[in-house]
Order: sequence, then structure tokens, then C-alpha cells
Amino acid sequence: MTAAPRVAYFNGRFMPEREVLIPYRDLSALRGYGAFDLTRTFHGRAFRLKEHVERLYRSLRYLDIDCGLPFDEMMALSEETLDRNRPLLTERDDYWIGQRISAGVQAIGDEGWDHVGPNVIIECCPLPIARRAHLFRDGIQVVTPATPRTPARALSPRAKMNQYLNMILAGNDVKRLNPNAWALLLDETGNLAEGEGNNIFLVSGGVLLTPRSQNILPGISRATVIEIAGSLGIEVRETDLDLYDAAVADEMFIASTSLCLCPVSSFNGRRIGTAIPGPVTQRLTAGYIDMVGCDFVQQHLSWLQ
Amino acid sequence: MTAAPRVAYFNGRFMPEREVLIPYRDLSALRGYGAFDLTRTFHGRAFRLKEHVERLYRSLRYLDIDCGLPFDEMMALSEETLDRNRPLLTERDDYWIGQRISAGVQAIGDEGWDHVGPNVIIECCPLPIARRAHLFRDGIQVVTPATPRTPARALSPRAKMNQYLNMILAGNDVKRLNPNAWALLLDETGNLAEGEGNNIFLVSGGVLLTPRSQNILPGISRATVIEIAGSLGIEVRETDLDLYDAAVADEMFIASTSLCLCPVSSFNGRRIGTAIPGPVTQRLTAGYIDMVGCDFVQQHLSWLQ
Amino acid sequence: MTAAPRVAYFNGRFMPEREVLIPYRDLSALRGYGAFDLTRTFHGRAFRLKEHVERLYRSLRYLDIDCGLPFDEMMALSEETLDRNRPLLTERDDYWIGQRISAGVQAIGDEGWDHVGPNVIIECCPLPIARRAHLFRDGIQVVTPATPRTPARALSPRAKMNQYLNMILAGNDVKRLNPNAWALLLDETGNLAEGEGNNIFLVSGGVLLTPRSQNILPGISRATVIEIAGSLGIEVRETDLDLYDAAVADEMFIASTSLCLCPVSSFNGRRIGTAIPGPVTQRLTAGYIDMVGCDFVQQHLSWLQ
Amino acid sequence: MTAAPRVAYFNGRFMPEREVLIPYRDLSALRGYGAFDLTRTFHGRAFRLKEHVERLYRSLRYLDIDCGLPFDEMMALSEETLDRNRPLLTERDDYWIGQRISAGVQAIGDEGWDHVGPNVIIECCPLPIARRAHLFRDGIQVVTPATPRTPARALSPRAKMNQYLNMILAGNDVKRLNPNAWALLLDETGNLAEGEGNNIFLVSGGVLLTPRSQNILPGISRATVIEIAGSLGIEVRETDLDLYDAAVADEMFIASTSLCLCPVSSFNGRRIGTAIPGPVTQRLTAGYIDMVGCDFVQQHLSWLQ
Amino acid sequence: MTAAPRVAYFNGRFMPEREVLIPYRDLSALRGYGAFDLTRTFHGRAFRLKEHVERLYRSLRYLDIDCGLPFDEMMALSEETLDRNRPLLTERDDYWIGQRISAGVQAIGDEGWDHVGPNVIIECCPLPIARRAHLFRDGIQVVTPATPRTPARALSPRAKMNQYLNMILAGNDVKRLNPNAWALLLDETGNLAEGEGNNIFLVSGGVLLTPRSQNILPGISRATVIEIAGSLGIEVRETDLDLYDAAVADEMFIASTSLCLCPVSSFNGRRIGTAIPGPVTQRLTAGYIDMVGCDFVQQHLSWLQ
Amino acid sequence: MTAAPRVAYFNGRFMPEREVLIPYRDLSALRGYGAFDLTRTFHGRAFRLKEHVERLYRSLRYLDIDCGLPFDEMMALSEETLDRNRPLLTERDDYWIGQRISAGVQAIGDEGWDHVGPNVIIECCPLPIARRAHLFRDGIQVVTPATPRTPARALSPRAKMNQYLNMILAGNDVKRLNPNAWALLLDETGNLAEGEGNNIFLVSGGVLLTPRSQNILPGISRATVIEIAGSLGIEVRETDLDLYDAAVADEMFIASTSLCLCPVSSFNGRRIGTAIPGPVTQRLTAGYIDMVGCDFVQQHLSWLQ
Repeated sequence: MTAAPRVAYFNGRFMPEREVLIPYRDLSALRGYGAFDLTRTFHGRAFRLKEHVERLYRSLRYLDIDCGLPFDEMMALSEETLDRNRPLLTERDDYWIGQRISAGVQAIGDEGWDHVGPNVIIECCPLPIARRAHLFRDGIQVVTPATPRTPARALSPRAKMNQYLNMILAGNDVKRLNPNAWALLLDETGNLAEGEGNNIFLVSGGVLLTPRSQNILPGISRATVIEIAGSLGIEVRETDLDLYDAAVADEMFIASTSLCLCPVSSFNGRRIGTAIPGPVTQRLTAGYIDMVGCDFVQQHLSWLQ
Repeated sequence: MTAAPRVAYFNGRFMPEREVLIPYRDLSALRGYGAFDLTRTFHGRAFRLKEHVERLYRSLRYLDIDCGLPFDEMMALSEETLDRNRPLLTERDDYWIGQRISAGVQAIGDEGWDHVGPNVIIECCPLPIARRAHLFRDGIQVVTPATPRTPARALSPRAKMNQYLNMILAGNDVKRLNPNAWALLLDETGNLAEGEGNNIFLVSGGVLLTPRSQNILPGISRATVIEIAGSLGIEVRETDLDLYDAAVADEMFIASTSLCLCPVSSFNGRRIGTAIPGPVTQRLTAGYIDMVGCDFVQQHLSWLQ
Repeated sequence: MTAAPRVAYFNGRFMPEREVLIPYRDLSALRGYGAFDLTRTFHGRAFRLKEHVERLYRSLRYLDIDCGLPFDEMMALSEETLDRNRPLLTERDDYWIGQRISAGVQAIGDEGWDHVGPNVIIECCPLPIARRAHLFRDGIQVVTPATPRTPARALSPRAKMNQYLNMILAGNDVKRLNPNAWALLLDETGNLAEGEGNNIFLVSGGVLLTPRSQNILPGISRATVIEIAGSLGIEVRETDLDLYDAAVADEMFIASTSLCLCPVSSFNGRRIGTAIPGPVTQRLTAGYIDMVGCDFVQQHLSWLQ
Repeated sequence: MTAAPRVAYFNGRFMPEREVLIPYRDLSALRGYGAFDLTRTFHGRAFRLKEHVERLYRSLRYLDIDCGLPFDEMMALSEETLDRNRPLLTERDDYWIGQRISAGVQAIGDEGWDHVGPNVIIECCPLPIARRAHLFRDGIQVVTPATPRTPARALSPRAKMNQYLNMILAGNDVKRLNPNAWALLLDETGNLAEGEGNNIFLVSGGVLLTPRSQNILPGISRATVIEIAGSLGIEVRETDLDLYDAAVADEMFIASTSLCLCPVSSFNGRRIGTAIPGPVTQRLTAGYIDMVGCDFVQQHLSWLQ
Repeated sequence: MTAAPRVAYFNGRFMPEREVLIPYRDLSALRGYGAFDLTRTFHGRAFRLKEHVERLYRSLRYLDIDCGLPFDEMMALSEETLDRNRPLLTERDDYWIGQRISAGVQAIGDEGWDHVGPNVIIECCPLPIARRAHLFRDGIQVVTPATPRTPARALSPRAKMNQYLNMILAGNDVKRLNPNAWALLLDETGNLAEGEGNNIFLVSGGVLLTPRSQNILPGISRATVIEIAGSLGIEVRETDLDLYDAAVADEMFIASTSLCLCPVSSFNGRRIGTAIPGPVTQRLTAGYIDMVGCDFVQQHLSWLQ
Repeated sequence: MTAAPRVAYFNGRFMPEREVLIPYRDLSALRGYGAFDLTRTFHGRAFRLKEHVERLYRSLRYLDIDCGLPFDEMMALSEETLDRNRPLLTERDDYWIGQRISAGVQAIGDEGWDHVGPNVIIECCPLPIARRAHLFRDGIQVVTPATPRTPARALSPRAKMNQYLNMILAGNDVKRLNPNAWALLLDETGNLAEGEGNNIFLVSGGVLLTPRSQNILPGISRATVIEIAGSLGIEVRETDLDLYDAAVADEMFIASTSLCLCPVSSFNGRRIGTAIPGPVTQRLTAGYIDMVGCDFVQQHLSWLQ
């Protein structure tokens, strides 16, 4: 097989992705000791890269990792990585720009590795637009697993780091029952928390509701939705929400970097609303498309033909 | 620098450790989605390898990872890895034999990597005997951080997996105050749980006390200590223990694969007992040395001269 | 339609079931303020009726209900109800004998009802043997919902009373995803608790494991299984069990009054064990059949032909 | 005794209350599987019937019950039930209009019952005005029992359903000590939650305080009080309140559909304030009377002469 | 008024109790920073003084207080305090011997106090035998307040220290409702914990039940009762007990240093058992009297004539 | 040594501090049953004495203590105590004015004490300005201990009472590791709560953050800081804050009656910000100095020369 021509930044150099290999004793692999962030492009342009990189640096600070690159350099290298890979994009595709930083290599010291400090990788990863296209047509099937989100006092969900087993195992439990289901974890009090890489929104009586930000990764897309709602005059409440709220909601949608916002069709098997998307979701979607200058819904749906 | 001559098993082949490099999008690195186990050698012979590999397979089962190797083959390959590296050992050294299994590579598919299934690595890692020698002379300084151990309902501590940030961040908080301190995390109820890779034992009124096994990784060394105590007629209780128990304990020690058992000299800065090791710890240490056929205390102390 | 010829005891009289009608303001209907118990027959003979009625009287005591009947009379009336309905049984059927006691009627007093004290009903309800026959062939599919069992400090699960919405709603969430699934609720700590009217057993390393009795309704069948295990020399532990235990279990089964014990084939979609039933489950089943003098497995399977 | 001439709606027909009898195996009676709501009349006119019926339909949605009647028909039948019973009212009385919906009958199918779907009942129940008259003169004695309100993650208190044993048993504990005491349950965090069918309000430093709505049934009367306070320029905070807040409160009152708002004279035996009602309570009471066009205080007190 | 002739030990000297005055800035008064213990006499002889003083020294160790007196000297001074006050005892009385140790005085240093180290007091306090005599005739009325016992992770109840407001305020809530009631606090899980200075025992089906010792002050009398039960062949279980266990218990009693063991007549207003004391309580009482060589029941009852 | 000439009010009389001695069986000493409050002077004038005395009376109300003095008299006596001691102040010093009230003496009644009601003391205590001067130069080192703050449901932290062992033992754990560290306790959810006598503030992105007031003693200085921030146009949020917030904060400071506000230099060993004080802290400090008319920073720093 010919390897993809995409290049990634790896500890100071750009190289084909296939050559980005890390010592097996890198702490991200041994211990999950690393942080990352992902920014989406629209028509090949990064959206809110600065907010994502700021969050990355907060994650690194929480994790006590000094990646060795100043903020501005990380920004510039991210843009450069995108510049180098942009020519490979077609109209129908877009990228995640990912920065991935490990805490370094836990080496004995005699293995012969030439770099044991933090591994810094910047990549462009094609978005799974075709694979997820049906979600914009059919809506997402959300299911709450029995496993709660790790409580913030044990490890803060507000840092984006390589610790996903809580969410992965919860997701596996759900996917074994329904391979199309997306897990939405509750927090330990029974309130809606978050999915793996996404935030939940409810619409009830015309008001937009979303969980408070302390026990979740407060997404940039979540903030964007709230901002758009504000500009559209839709009331927003960040508050504790539970299964009762979900049962009586009129509409529901998921916000994430890659999907922006995408309707939910059922919650624990209960049909949500009557149309996909519902009217408020539709207004917010239109506002989002306006803001990013890219009809991401159409971008997805075009793959279904 | 000349690389160490140790070899490791990597997806079907033996090779120098320096060549064991994994794609940066391996799930162990991206998500901490992997499991491992470590067995100690004494005089170059593995101790209770079977128990460790059984625990590894339970961890894999919990994580839904099929490593592709049957149990017996994993045993044989582990022994073979040891056989190949044993000649490099001196009298004063020993190994951890480590099996490390990832959930595979989250690849787009076009990167050109030739293996995207679970990465299977078996290695021999020299024990840090010299670096930790002083612990057997001075005892370990144990400190309880404010961060509790992740509760089992979010992610079971009984699986040995690549998810250490809860313990690492808690340990960082302690080590910034005292670089020699070892963090011992409490569980969410305030009971003693475990340290990063070790179990705690208290001696009070001649009785050996250790936390119950549900919220900790129940170590093979922990089980060995309990077995030895039984054979010595020392009463053992697996029970809830808290800061009051620690404050009034007569002796305290840590059990881990590499250290076997090692005395604790202070707990949250309070001196524990009057001698290092205390009398019951000493009896258990002697029993442990007998069982494994290696004076691991002397092995450590010899490095101090 | 011709009504069934079964008769029930209702406040002092025996009458056709169809005539057992209660004022809509009976507290069992208004508030769920009532208690009940169900005993199984084997070949038309009640098994451990005394234990069930004793549990009923403990439930009534907890609920502050004085049903007006002394214990012995309740026993005698239950046997009489069975005697009157036994002729209707065939070889392939059996009954639940149910006692149902409300706290009385919350009446204004002028409605004209002639009885406003506790309503006392004793009935014989045919077991759904045909409908559940496949479970003994295929095993039960157990799923843990996100809703935890009501904690004992709010309302003790040890009383058998008319308050099932916690379990029913949790069960609905599961059944919407898989109509054949049986919900097994966790307690608030994430430990396995109970299903609606059934208890869970795990077999791990030859040891029989089941949740402790404080946060569940400790079934008479559960006690019977434990007793049989004892007589067969199988070690039993009543202890905290969680999703890790379930993931690594060798066998699993459900105990309930009607099913006695019935194998579990999957847990959250993971296949359990390799045979249905597993070897320990099989021995316990054989012991149970011996004890009750009725091959309840065959009784079920016979309906599949 | 001659039965009361009141009629109730029962599954499509109006009939005397005494004839509203339900099969003993109706799920509301067996399992507490049903929902209801109660609206108050003032001078025989329903107050905020729409809000109550909307809440009923949210409760039904949460409980997965389809009552078979569209919302508008439920409204119309409720008004008709009131119309039919209004002539029986005197000046000094008023009604609760109650809708009571079960999940249907858990029947074997051969009993001969002609209706096994959800039982739908609409009734007019005279308010216990005479019996509670003294509360407006003397104030309510509130006591907090040791049993906490069922947490929302187990079963949401926001649905009005036939599951009262948590509150009834807590209330029994209080009433055995003082038959006049009203139980006010705490939530699991120790915050004030709710009483059986009523909400609590505190006045402290001129500010009106009441528990947040997630863990309670947020009453229509509670909303009415908040609305009135707003129109009177009284600051309102929906917030966590605990025993400290209660101990230092200047005034306290209960809001419920039937009582509207009624002063609390003591809390756990501590005298509250110096007058019954206190000045803020009095202003709110006056505002409530204005809004509903009925002096419900006088309506009660008139029975004391 | 003439002061009592009792003398107390105070920082090295014996003096009349009225002269034992401490600086207002003693840490026991400012902060509740002090520990104590109380031993009972029978016919003027101390019972299990050693166990009580051992517990005192464990309390001091937990609190980081060095009282300046070796254990043996504390024993000797306690006996001497008793010797000096014994002549004042009549047949019908007995003492608490109390050791009270503060953490010292938080002084500015210029107040002129001659002693600012830990204040050490040893006293003989007459038991309130007459005042409590009726409890042995009528039984104790136990009530569970809404305030839970402080959790051990915040402050261990196993140290006997000057921090009683949690229990005092909980007790006040109960005593305002019924001045004769004794508060029995639950722990945060809803299990029975302890009263102010006493432990609870239940008898159910002939088995003696008492809460586990981690979240309570495990009394010397509690240990004595357990020891006596063992010698009488009565099965004892230290386990989690809740309101359900209390509701269905056959007998109940309180154990404390001063009362030894004393029957409970009601629990949250429910009558317990049929006789005071019940048969098992009676056997244990007889065993206790035998062991201490003093009929403490008669000693109390004699004051009722 | 000559005793200090300061006088204190003690139960109706003014006397030298050295003569303020309380019976050892005063409930504040026996049980920690007492309340107090402390007001700071600036240039010898009390600041917000009224707010402090109001809080004292709320504490007394919560504790069920009637101190026997009306509010106005307590105010007047506090001012008089200050008047009598003011001549002893120099330019560089100031006082805490303390009111200390016990619940009275738990006396047998024959000891001969002439006063057994609540002991009421009013004192002037010199502030430890010299001893703490370095904190304004170096900043405070804050450490979070493993012991959480006592939850409000067990005992409300909003009353200022003699129950400090939870905070003292937590502080001891921290001070044994670093004698200069100040303990900042978390609440049971892992949110920042309070230190012994002080409140924490964070600055993040220009916004001032501080924990909500329910689970802490909401200080008068805390309220003053919030008020000043408002007047300076700095946004303030009272919200849940955890270790993640602390890790990513730009500035941090402590507010307390004596220190007013004082910068934090490190949190769990992590350096906070780049300057001491940071820019927002500096603006608030300037505002505080303006409001109280005393440069408390200079007052402290002057002692360092």
C-alpha cells in the first residue's frame, strides 16, 4: 500500500505520518500521560484555533507538562501543518488539526532513544464526514450507560488528556447492545454529563439547556452554540439536567468540534421530538453555518447520494 | 551512545528495545487504551509469573481487548524474553518482565502502517534497585494527597491499565512538597486505598491490617504477604482503614512487585513506630526472603556502600 | 369471555378473581402504600410458604400496616386459597400464591364504601412458564441501566412493597433497547444490586458470589441457593460485586421465586461463560430440583416443543 | 349509609364515586405505577388547571404511560367533572379536581375484566378545610425526619406519581413523636427538600428563599408565590438551604395546592419568628388572595368558630 | 454554699474541684482541642481503667497532643484521685473517673498565666444514678435525628475528644420534640451510628447486632457486652444496620460506661418488643452484673422508691 | 513576669486577662460548646463590628445558646472593651476584638462555682502583625490536605464555633510536611472550601472567583472584597472551584479578618502567577486600604526592616 502523502510535525521536523513512531515507553503509551486538542477546519481554514490551543495549554498546565514550545510557536506550527496538508483536501472534506503532547519517555536511559523529552506531534486528520453523514439525516441515538463519568475530584474532565477508558468502557457497554448508539455518561449525581468528545443540549419550552461546565470538557463548539443562541435571542441555561429533563425535552442535539451540532433522534430508546432537526436546533444550525461560512450539514448529507 | 543490548518481543519478533516504536495513533498513546503487567525476577527467575499473566488476561477481558495470543503462548514468550535477557543480569540486579498490550491503532487507514491491531510487547526492564536502596535503610515517607483514587464505579482499579493520571497528578502534588514522599491515595470515603503500584499494610496490636481489595489493584505481593502472615500465625484483616488507623498504627509497610515489602518511616509526617523495620515487618520480610529464595533487602542495601 | 374459575380471598370471603375490585382511593393505588409476597408451588405444593409469610409480616411492620390477620391465619388462608385453586392446575403448570395487603382506603368517608380498612387479598396466579421457557434454553440477557436502585436510607429494598417505579423505569430504559433484556440495577456505589424480583449470582474461580443483603430484597430463593451451595461444598461469598466482577465472571445466574435459578447468557452484551448453564450453575440447579422435588427446568423446556 | 352524590369520570363514563372500583391487579395498586395531579378550586372555579394538567402529561411521559386521552380532552373532562359536582359545594368549601391514571392492569388475561388498559379517573374531592383550619391560626409545626427524600437519580421527584412510601414512612416517624407535626424531608446532601405535597419557603433578611427545583416536585403554588413575590418587589432566591438557614430564618411558610400558603410556627421545635404570619408571609398571602379572588385564610378560619 | 469536698488532680497538684479553673484561652475552650475519657466505678472500684486510659492515649496520638505524663503515671494518678474521693461515696453511688487533657493555651504570652502547656485534669464525677433510675424501669426512648454523625473522613469518631456539637445539636432537635428522647445518629449512608456517649444493640431472631466500629466510638462497654454474649453462646454480628433493622428488631438496648446496658422501649416512637428488658437483654444484663460484681440495675431502681 | 495590662470583660466585670479563668467543666472546654467572633481594628477603630456581632448572634441562635446580653449591649461592651485597651496600642499594632460565649457549665452543682450560666468574655487580642509580616512579601503557601471540611449537613461551617479539630488536624498534616504551609480544605465533593479562619479567592482571565458560601464560614472580609471588586468593575463569581481551577488560575489570595487580603504564592507547590501580588490582587488591596483607611500591607511590611 502507498502511504498517504499527509505530513505531520514531530519534535521539530515535518515528515510523513507513517514515520511518526514513538518509543513504546513514552508516558502517553505507558500511563496515558499526555494531552491533546483538535481544531476543525471549514473549507480548509481552522476555526477558533486560538481557543483550542489555549485549552491545550491549560490542559498541559494541569498535567504539569512543559511541552517546550511557546504558545505562539504552537499556533504557527499548527497553521504550517495545515498549510502543508491543505492541498490534499477536496471540497467535500475537512481536517481535524491535532496537537498531541506526551509527558516524555520513561526510559531506563540506555535504550538508545535520541529523544526522551515530551513528544510533540501536530497532525492533520481527515474528518469522518462520509461515515457520519447519516447522522444528520437520521439523528443520533443517545443511550446513558450505567458507568458514571469519572468525578472531577479524581481527575478533572476539563483537561483534554489521554485518559478515555472511563468513557470507552461505558461506550462499549452501550455499543454491544446497539452498535449505532452513542453513550452519554451521567455524573455521579445522576446528572447528564458528556459523551466521548461531545456535549449535550436540550430544548424545553423554547429554552436551551446544557449541563454546567465543571464536570465536563466544556467544548469550544458548546461555547459557540451558546454564543449563537444569545445572538438569536434564545434563552440558555447551564444547569443540572437529569433523566427527567431528557424524558420531557422537546428537542435534543449534540455539539462537538467535528459535527458542530447534530440532532439527537432518541434518548434511551425514547423518540425525541417530532422532526429531525427540531425547530430550535434548526435555527441554531443555520446560525452556526453562517458563523463558520460552511454548510457542514450539506457537506455531510452530500455523501449519502 | 551505544544502545543497551536488551531485546524485547514486539508483535511476533524479538528486537533491540530501541527499535520498539509504535505508531503515534496507537490507542494506548491516544487514549491510554491498553493493559500491562509486571513480574519480578529473583536471581533472574520469574516469581509467580502465572498469577501476573492471569491478572493481565483479566484486565484485557475487562477492557474488551483480544491480544491475539493464547495464555500459554504469552507465558512461553515471557519466559523466552527473560531467557534472552538473563545473561545481561549481574548478581546484584533483577528484572521486571513486562507484558504491554494496546487496543490497536486508531488509524485512518491510509498512513501506511503495516500493523494496526493490538500492539503486543514483552520486555525485561532492570529494577531500580540502586536508586531505591535507601528506602530499606530509611523507610518510605508516605503522604496522603487531597485527590482521592478514582472510584471503582467509574473505572475499576482492579484492572492494570494505562490510566495513571489520577495517581500521577496526586503524586505530583505530594512530590512538589517533598520530593521523597510517596503518595498513598484515599478512596472517596476517606479510607486508605493504594499508591501508584503498591499496597499498604498496617500493624496494630500485633494484627496485620490492609485495605479490602475492591477499590485497589490487589497486588500479587499483597497476596504473598497475606499468605506468609498466615503461615507465621499472624492474624490478618482485610478491612476499611482510615487516617485514625494510620495515626495509631505500630508499624506500616508497602508491598509491591519490585520492593516486595518495604518499611514506612512516616505517614503524613508522623513518625511510625520506633524501629525500621518494626518487629512484625521484620518477621514478614524474613518469610518473604525465604519464599522467594533471594534476600531482596540485602540486594538493595548492598548498593549503599 | 368466560372469566377464569380461579378464586381469591378478599377481606374475609372467597370469590372469583374478576370480582376482586378495590376502591380507587385505596392507598395501594393512590400512594403505592401496600405490601405483598409471592410463594411458588411445585406440583401444586407451596414451597417455603412460612418464610414468605414471615417476610410479608416484616414488610408490614416496616410499613406500619396492621393487616388484621394473625400470622397463623394468614398461613391457613393461603393454604386454603391454594387448595381451592389446585384442581385447576395441570402437570405442566404451577402457581404463585400471593398475599396483597394495602394500608386501607384514603376516603372522605361519604363515598359509601363498606370497607375502608386494609384490603387483604390472597390469590393464586399461574406462573408464566410457557412464556419464559426459552430462558432456560438461551439464558437471560442482563443489562445494567443508568438508574441506580433506590438507596436503602430513602426506602429499604428489604421490604416487599408496592413501590416499583425505580425498577420499572430502569427496566423500560433497557427494554426499549432490547426487548428481551432484563435490567439488573446497580446500587449508588456502583455495586450490583438486584433486578425486579430477582437476585444475581456470579461464579468466579469456583466460588459462588452474590451481593450482600442490605440493599436488596434478599430472596427466599437466594437463601435456598446459598443453602444448597453449602451442602454441595461450594464456597459462597456475600460481598460487594461490581462491573469488573461481572466482566471476569465464569458463570452467572438469576435466582427468583418463580424461576428458582436460571442461567444468564450475557451481561451488558458480553457473552458469559461457554455453556448454558455452566458447570456450577448446573450442580446448583440439580440440587434445587432435588430439594423442591420438581424439575422446573424440564417443566419450562417442555413448553418449547 | 347513603353514598355521597359526587360523581367521577371513570374510563369514559361518569358514575357515583362508590362505583369507581378497579381490578386489584391494576398496576397502580400492584406496583404504584400511575400518575396523578390535583388542582384546587376557589369559589368552585379551577385555578391554573392547565398548568396542573401539563404537569400531569409530563409525569405520564416520564412514566411511559399513554393514557389514551389527548390533552384538550383531559382539560374538558376535568372541567365537566367539576361542573357536575359544583352544585354540591357550599360557600365554605372547595374541591381538589384530581386526574388519576394507572399504567393498566397486569392481568393474566383470563380474569374476565373488561378493561385492562390504563385506568383513567377524574374526581372532585372536597378539601379538608375544616380539619386544617387551625393551621392558619396556629401555624404548622415542621419537623425534619432522619429519612432523606429519594434522590432524583433513583426516581425523579418532579413527576407526581403513586410512589409515596419514602415520604409516608418519614412522616410516620415524625407523627409518632408529635401527631401534629408535618415532615419536611431533607435531600441526601442535607438540604431542605419538600414535604408530602408541599414546598417550603424561608424569609431571611427580607429575602424569600426556597429550595431549587431539581430534587422536589416544583409546585404550581410555589410558582405562584414566586410570581407574586416578584410583583411585590420581594427578592426571591431558589437555592440550597439547610438546617442553618432554617435556624436563623425570620419567617417560614408552606406552599401547597390546597393550603396555598400557610405559616410555619416551629421548625424542629424551634419557634420561628414572632408573629403568625410574619410580615412578609402576610404580604404574600394578601397577594395570593388577590390573585385567586378568594380569601382562603378566612375560608379556613371561619370553621374555627 | 459550701463547696463539695471532692478533689481533682490539676497539672501536678490535688485541689478542690472549685479551684480547677483554666485560662479562657485554653485550646480546649477556644477550639475544642482536647481529649478525655471516663471510667466507671462499681462499689468504688474502677472497671477496665486500663482499657479506657489506652483509648485516651490513642485519642491523644490522633490529636497530636503530648500530655507530658507517661501511661503508667496516668494510671497511678487516676487511681490516686479515686482513692482520695472514694470515702465520699455511699453504697448507692459510684463515680466516673475522668481524665481531661487540653492541647495547651493559645496565649499571646504576656497574660501572666504560669502554665500554658496542656492542662491535665483528673476528676471523680458522681454518676447521675438517681436521675436516670427510671430508664431501667421504663426503657429509653430512642429517636433518630435528621443530622447525620460527622463522617470519619472529616474527623474520626473513634477518638474521644471535645467536639460534640454535631451530636449536641442533633440531640437538641430531638429533645425539643420530646425532652425524654435520646438521639441516635445515623451515619451518612443511613446506617445506625451512635448516640452521645453510647452504642446501640439490636436483637433479631436471637442474634445480637451492633454497628461496625469504624464510624463510631467503640465503647468499652460495647466490647464488654460482646464478650459476655460470646461467653453465653449468643451469636454477635458487627454489621451495617439501618431503619429497617430497627423496625423489625425484637429487642434493643443501649450500652454505655455509666449505664452498662439499658433497655430501649421505643425507636422513633415504635414500641420495641414486649417486655423491658427483653429476654436476651436480660441474660446479657445478668452476665454484666456478674462480671462487674455490682447489680447496677438494682443500684438504679433503688432510687425510685 | 508582669502580666499584660490588657483588660477583658468577663460575666459583667472588666478585669485583667490573667484573671479570666473558667471552670474546667465549662461546656466550651468539655464539649467545644461555644461560639465566638473576632473583629479587626484599623488604627484602633473597629471595622464592621456590627456585621461581626450579627454573625455571632446567628451562631448563637444555631447553637441554641442564649448569652443573656441583648445585641446592643454586646455592641456597647465590645466598644468599651476596645476603649479600655486602646491606649495600649502603638501605631504599628492593632487588635482583634473577640466575643467568646460558652453554653454554660455542666456542673454537678455542688462544686461551689458561683456562675454556671453561659460564660461571656470580651477581649482585645493584639494581632500577630510582626509574625505574619513576611506573608505580604513572600505570599502564602497553600496546601490542600487529604481531610475534607466537615460537611454542612453534619455541622454547619457557617456558624463560628469552638469546633476546630477537623481543620486543626488537617492543618497539622500539612504543617508537618511544610511548617510554613497553610491548609486549604476541600469540601466532600472536591471543591475548594476554606482554611482555618480564611477564605480563598482566585483570579482567572480577569474574573474574581470564590467558593459559594454554603459550605464555608462566609467571612466579612470576603464580603468586603466582593463589594470592592464590584465598585472597581471586576466581575465576581461565587461558584464551585476545584483543583483544576487552582492549577490554571492567574492569581490567588486569601481573605481574613486579620490579614484583610494577602497574596498566595504557591498552591500545592505550584507557583501561582508571576508577581506577588498579581495585578488584580493589587487593585483590590488598594481598594481595601482605601475603604478601611489603613495601609495594612505597609503595617505588616514595616516589621520586616
